[in-house]
Amino acid sequence: MTSKSILIYDTTLRDGSQGEGVSFSLQDKLNIAERLAEIGVDFIEGGYPLSNEKDVAFFQEIKKRDLGKTKVCAFGMTRRKRVKAEEDPGMRALVAAQTPCITLVGKTWDYHATEVLNVTLDENLALIGESAEFLGRSAEVIYDAEHFFDGFNANPEYAIKTLQAAASAGAVWLSLCDTNGGTLPDRIAEVTAIAIKELADYNVQFGIHCHNDCELAVANSIAAVDAGATQVQGTINGIGERCGNVDLVSVMANLALKKQGYSVLGGRSLQPLTELSRFVYETANLQWRNSQPFVGQSAFAHKGGMHVHAINKAAKTYEHIDPVLVGNERRILVSELSGRSNIVAVANRYNIKNDRELMDKVLAEVVRLENQGYQFENAGASFDLLVKRLAGTFKPHFETIKYRVVAGDRDSEASAVYAEAIIKLKVGDQLWFDAAEGHGPVNALDAALRKALADDFPQLNQMRLIDYKVRVVDSGAGTAASTRVNIESCDDKESWGTIGVSENIIEASWRALVDAVEYKLHKAEINSGP
Amino acid sequence: MTSKSILIYDTTLRDGSQGEGVSFSLQDKLNIAERLAEIGVDFIEGGYPLSNEKDVAFFQEIKKRDLGKTKVCAFGMTRRKRVKAEEDPGMRALVAAQTPCITLVGKTWDYHATEVLNVTLDENLALIGESAEFLGRSAEVIYDAEHFFDGFNANPEYAIKTLQAAASAGAVWLSLCDTNGGTLPDRIAEVTAIAIKELADYNVQFGIHCHNDCELAVANSIAAVDAGATQVQGTINGIGERCGNVDLVSVMANLALKKQGYSVLGGRSLQPLTELSRFVYETANLQWRNSQPFVGQSAFAHKGGMHVHAINKAAKTYEHIDPVLVGNERRILVSELSGRSNIVAVANRYNIKNDRELMDKVLAEVVRLENQGYQFENAGASFDLLVKRLAGTFKPHFETIKYRVVAGDRDSEASAVYAEAIIKLKVGDQLWFDAAEGHGPVNALDAALRKALADDFPQLNQMRLIDYKVRVVDSGAGTAASTRVNIESCDDKESWGTIGVSENIIEASWRALVDAVEYKLHKAEINSGP
Repeated sequence: MTSKSILIYDTTLRDGSQGEGVSFSLQDKLNIAERLAEIGVDFIEGGYPLSNEKDVAFFQEIKKRDLGKTKVCAFGMTRRKRVKAEEDPGMRALVAAQTPCITLVGKTWDYHATEVLNVTLDENLALIGESAEFLGRSAEVIYDAEHFFDGFNANPEYAIKTLQAAASAGAVWLSLCDTNGGTLPDRIAEVTAIAIKELADYNVQFGIHCHNDCELAVANSIAAVDAGATQVQGTINGIGERCGNVDLVSVMANLALKKQGYSVLGGRSLQPLTELSRFVYETANLQWRNSQPFVGQSAFAHKGGMHVHAINKAAKTYEHIDPVLVGNERRILVSELSGRSNIVAVANRYNIKNDRELMDKVLAEVVRLENQGYQFENAGASFDLLVKRLAGTFKPHFETIKYRVVAGDRDSEASAVYAEAIIKLKVGDQLWFDAAEGHGPVNALDAALRKALADDFPQLNQMRLIDYKVRVVDSGAGTAASTRVNIESCDDKESWGTIGVSENIIEASWRALVDAVEYKLHKAEINSGP
Repeated sequence: MTSKSILIYDTTLRDGSQGEGVSFSLQDKLNIAERLAEIGVDFIEGGYPLSNEKDVAFFQEIKKRDLGKTKVCAFGMTRRKRVKAEEDPGMRALVAAQTPCITLVGKTWDYHATEVLNVTLDENLALIGESAEFLGRSAEVIYDAEHFFDGFNANPEYAIKTLQAAASAGAVWLSLCDTNGGTLPDRIAEVTAIAIKELADYNVQFGIHCHNDCELAVANSIAAVDAGATQVQGTINGIGERCGNVDLVSVMANLALKKQGYSVLGGRSLQPLTELSRFVYETANLQWRNSQPFVGQSAFAHKGGMHVHAINKAAKTYEHIDPVLVGNERRILVSELSGRSNIVAVANRYNIKNDRELMDKVLAEVVRLENQGYQFENAGASFDLLVKRLAGTFKPHFETIKYRVVAGDRDSEASAVYAEAIIKLKVGDQLWFDAAEGHGPVNALDAALRKALADDFPQLNQMRLIDYKVRVVDSGAGTAASTRVNIESCDDKESWGTIGVSENIIEASWRALVDAVEYKLHKAEINSGP
């Protein structure tokens, strides 16, 4: 059986960048475009060349890269009223971008044309047709019918006429946009089918562009594909204005793995999706969404003791797909709800003898610490050390005696902000007392700790901190509330998470730092058992 | 036209608490239950009395509260094999909870019964029937058919038999569970319709229980309602294991506001939804999901200059519903992408003369600061001060001269962790030099700042900090990366957000603190304009 190929159109770099808190540098945009091309995305909308210099520079740079079959699209609106297409600055900017595709957005909704653009309905059709015709001389034109579904509801005949104006002028694709994200799946299917039927005489294909304002963007995109659309526009992780665009990750996974009869990315593997998702979050400097379908850290995480018990017996009873198919992995979480099965799973991983007594001790300690604000779910290394401590197999490599940090905005040497840390610790019988400066107090503490341990443990040179997160645990109490610090560290082989909780952010950071270093020193021993 | 009433079954307190990072105290659970009852939720699943003491205590306490028409449900599994229902500890715990409803979960999937429970298919039917019959003596029984859709795919006849076993034994509701979240909407509709038809001879009603593993839980729940289900199970904000349960907020908003012919909550207003959503996040100590449909902070936020321009002309062109209907509000964001329209909107709000020159200056400064890691979207107060500064209408109430903080884990007086801050500032010609202690460095700085300003500005007594958030802006550089601090402050009238960015977390906190205090002092002036 051959499957129908659905093309993937990514607008992370344009519509995605409209999302709250999202801002890409030129280098960010180039990096994301290369990743998208690597996995085989069909179209990449790179930006809006009229709107800013960064997008102009993007199109200049991206031309120099080899993106394989992936087509880059420049995005822009129909020409202004009372200006010829060839003289319109927006049109000229689109052509100047020299992309193989140009995505032209135009108004479908009669109300929108007359009330927002202030043109007559016929003038709007001329804007669409003349713009599409002009751009079609230089590139493949994808016509984005803005507000298509709302426009169709208001005035179906006119909405179809706007599509015809674009198709007559040579647009290759007509993409139906649910711009406000307010349409429900049944209606998306119905109206998409009508549009395809009404345009049957034109040589065009259809795309769908959904927003998630009703939490139905994935269902809507699939409904349009079932109705005949062969291109889906969206963003990685569903970033975008308001509630976001449709998440292409979920769209691709559903079409390729859950539905019958469709393929995406030319049939290539979806295993890069998890890494791609996280890469885009990191680049956009957004928090990962742990509960994200398919690629979230929790998507295949199991917490309830009953579920974990069953998972160990038969994975498919609690997993709708094999996480490997999207590059994700199963995780067993530690928590007061989880019962013994979870702790046994973790202890087994490290060859620690899991007798009943140890299990009871670990469970009780986890509950006690969770009440203080600890969460071991992202701090597996701290949990491993905890289990070792309670099992009596933990031998610390060093003993901390004290630390102090000073930070301020003026010092005698310079007017810059600064921080310095002093620490005292023992390795065996040897006392170390060291100080270091840093950009901030945690950075200074980290430097002082490494300085004191450098002679005894040169392997710490391979270790570095890759992320530092702070969370106020009880937000009711303002700055006096408890602070939870998570530190992610790595060496050349792997990364590990540690945690510290305290009313004092410096102390919480210190605990997480000390665990991170101890874990690095214990790693080989832990992995090979007791 | 009368609309069909769809009952809302909330399991935030039970299935929601299986979510990663979610942990409710007894008081949390009682508070959430009361809020749910206030808005008119029909059923509240309070917990699993066999699993822990906290849930047992919840049922004891909740009996004493007046929840109006809302019914509380205790949740548990079918009896164990080879134990009579009346002697099974789980059954007894359910009855002992003395709730008006009991939710009984049983196995639908033949594979699950034989491979996980290790019972024959007939034994499983007996477990379901006998458990339902026993519990039905004390309460209204809601039977949750676990893995109903997967079970139906594997063995449709047997899946229907499990429903019949529950219905024959007196279950009032049969809730069809897509436990793994792997089913697509068309199939949910088809199988739900079959189940309803097959059970036509029984006096039962149908519920739907979806998980979001394919990002289709809302579409699936609506599909089941369209197929005849009259109860929807889910959680507030969609919290729950893996990718979460269906978000009841989106379900309620879609059924009542977007679909035709249904009502929820007995036709009551959905205006409390936004506040309820945020209350649950705060109680669960989870970050709000800004992009959450309907109730997220970004759900009606507008960033792109084009959109903002249009919104000012005609709200419905970019909003699918009036945000007031769900208790949310429109927000205009500031960003380098936003163009002038956004800044004009903000300046107008504060009666600052928005000439072209000021607009250019503000835009340039916002771009410069965003490049450093600032984001004004959650820091409206800092933005207001910025605009005032650039407009030349800002007169600082005090001038900071220096600060210093010291934090450590030992000092001469005590072995506890501690922090102290020294600050020097000027109010008019008067110099103040003060010091204060605190639980952590930011708390100490806050205390020292208030101490120094207390004589001149007694109104600061009304102000308090309600949230403190830290974000590493460039996570690639570990602890030396830039740190973004957001502080949320309030007085008896309103709350406001401020921001500080620096490589040094103390300096970033200090900037956000100073802005918070300045905003409080400027508030009256800003609101009445220059």
